[in-house]
Amino acid sequence: MNLLDYLPGVPDFPKPGILFRDISPLLANPAAFKEAIAQMEALAQSFDYTHILGIESRGFIFGSALAHHAHKGLALARKPNKLPLATHKEFYGLEYGSDYLEIQQSTLPAGAKVLLIDDVLATGGTLIAANKLLRNAGFEVCGAITLLEISFLNGRQLLDQHGIANKSVLVS
Amino acid sequence: MNLLDYLPGVPDFPKPGILFRDISPLLANPAAFKEAIAQMEALAQSFDYTHILGIESRGFIFGSALAHHAHKGLALARKPNKLPLATHKEFYGLEYGSDYLEIQQSTLPAGAKVLLIDDVLATGGTLIAANKLLRNAGFEVCGAITLLEISFLNGRQLLDQHGIANKSVLVS
Repeated sequence: MNLLDYLPGVPDFPKPGILFRDISPLLANPAAFKEAIAQMEALAQSFDYTHILGIESRGFIFGSALAHHAHKGLALARKPNKLPLATHKEFYGLEYGSDYLEIQQSTLPAGAKVLLIDDVLATGGTLIAANKLLRNAGFEVCGAITLLEISFLNGRQLLDQHGIANKSVLVS
Repeated sequence: MNLLDYLPGVPDFPKPGILFRDISPLLANPAAFKEAIAQMEALAQSFDYTHILGIESRGFIFGSALAHHAHKGLALARKPNKLPLATHKEFYGLEYGSDYLEIQQSTLPAGAKVLLIDDVLATGGTLIAANKLLRNAGFEVCGAITLLEISFLNGRQLLDQHGIANKSVLVS
């Protein structure tokens, strides 16, 4: 099974010039989704982590199934004003726009070792913001796993420069 | 294990007068999350379904883990302009605001039998919109499962009136 076949590129979405990878065909196919989570988990095993950070929204999908499968805790990095209680906040730029990410101050226990999960590694902006958020809050970030790295955007190089160990199941 | 202990109420979030149920403590605890998914899956077994519809964003979390665990397909109901390709769209009101939900026209195969998944059943507005979306697109909706029903909002009665079979793990 070639998982890339289940991630078709959609040109000019959400903006002209962007080739969007549509995860819907992969999710709709139980065997493909199972295989994607199995391969992400195989990569995750090289990290010593206690919790997964799922990044809104598509990172929730892969982060949740992976946390459940691997019996790890799941924390959420959300868009602004979605999380109750006190939060830490970080601004970030991404391939098509910019926004804030938030995590709750109280959810993760002291000593948590966190693995960042998202669907796609594009410019790396989201993962770098998530890394900053967690480190500034005093948590250890073990690394980042994505399903697909879009290599021409050089996100991996940027993550390497920030000292974020990262692995992707697929590279396109 | 009483799962309600992992879903603390946060008063006046996101607006005054709303008691928000925070799912973060449940997700952060692997045993509690596992138990929640196991109980949702036990309820799901009474439905003859081929696909799960996860409703953005918190429905993605439970829908994804459940679809992966039960080896079912996962489709996404998203906020406007997040899904590429042609979509069906439905307006809906909810406990604190209103919005559109979209599904892709092409993701679900003909004959799909869909189980709706969300974290909380409040007024029922989101699930009714999701039900309409799928039915108007020609799909069968088997029913809806949520982790928590907030009973005083009478969402269950509204779902019953719309002929949407529904079950929740917890009632508060």
